[in-house]
Amino acid sequence: MESQYKESNNIGGIESGGGDKEVKVANKRKTRGWDVVLRFLAVALSLAAAVVLGLDKQTKTVAVTLVPTLPPVNIPVVAKWHHLSAFVYFVVANAIACGHAAISLLLTLANKGTNKGISILIIILDLIMVALLFSGIGSALAIGLMGYEGNSHVRWPKVCNVFGKFCNQAAAAIGLSGATSLAFFLLVVLATFNLHKKH
Amino acid sequence: MESQYKESNNIGGIESGGGDKEVKVANKRKTRGWDVVLRFLAVALSLAAAVVLGLDKQTKTVAVTLVPTLPPVNIPVVAKWHHLSAFVYFVVANAIACGHAAISLLLTLANKGTNKGISILIIILDLIMVALLFSGIGSALAIGLMGYEGNSHVRWPKVCNVFGKFCNQAAAAIGLSGATSLAFFLLVVLATFNLHKKH
Repeated sequence: MESQYKESNNIGGIESGGGDKEVKVANKRKTRGWDVVLRFLAVALSLAAAVVLGLDKQTKTVAVTLVPTLPPVNIPVVAKWHHLSAFVYFVVANAIACGHAAISLLLTLANKGTNKGISILIIILDLIMVALLFSGIGSALAIGLMGYEGNSHVRWPKVCNVFGKFCNQAAAAIGLSGATSLAFFLLVVLATFNLHKKH
Repeated sequence: MESQYKESNNIGGIESGGGDKEVKVANKRKTRGWDVVLRFLAVALSLAAAVVLGLDKQTKTVAVTLVPTLPPVNIPVVAKWHHLSAFVYFVVANAIACGHAAISLLLTLANKGTNKGISILIIILDLIMVALLFSGIGSALAIGLMGYEGNSHVRWPKVCNVFGKFCNQAAAAIGLSGATSLAFFLLVVLATFNLHKKH
């Protein structure tokens, strides 16, 4: 009797529905859809973050007094992203995240969740990206804020009053990287929920 | 025939072993053991990191030339952790991580993995701790390295040649926080593997 029911369900699956299974398949598709969207966003946002800071450069003519008895001399001073190691780390971290997001996007589309090993590998790499991006954001933000405000205790003067455009571009890059890290964060959360639901 | 086998297995489960189940229970216990050990380590390490940086203070007498024609005057200068906002963020992040680790340790011991909602909540909070700690480490490390090396481009002089003990203590705190973040990272990885295995 049971085997008969199973057979009829297999053959007539489209008409009779097979409710629970359909809901599961629909849920799986929905999750994969979000997964693909988030990875695509991660590729775009991390690329944008790396490029925005990687192209950050500002030349400013600053009046410097060389000899007290002579009038100040105008000297062009250049601010570049690779002058600060925290910004270099930030750009490299975002470039790595971009590469991982692109490869994992292709793997997710090719894999379709059938290979468990690949799924676990992708989750763990996503988690490493969360750590990498947050440390990059932390370091760039710490240096950026120091540039905006300076610190009298360690005698580091603010530099953003002179290099305003440079600092604003760095802030935009940090914002973009923040959105990328959120995407990876949600990917890990999604994977956790997915595992709980699926099984 | 099949139902008979099932019944006999149910009744005689203890004698006949029920191998698969036993292995699963043993695995679960092992995972919970690691979970508890990692959380305990996280409590201790994050507390140590917060305290080591929270007590970081160094007073140094620096010779300052006030008037060029007079000899330099010795002035005591104090370096404190809360002079730098990145260090304040680091201490707060580690204190929050310590609180979460302690509460989640108690919840894990009380819950015993029976309540799925609590398990998911703990995993997501663990993930937030990974993000929080890595951003804290990134910011403290960026400021710390700037203190060690200085930067001629933005005219920030190094300060660790004067406040060596202060900088070394900050470096120790960053190392402790690095170990804490690794513990939380492993907790999330463990939870992911656990979910895959369990089901």
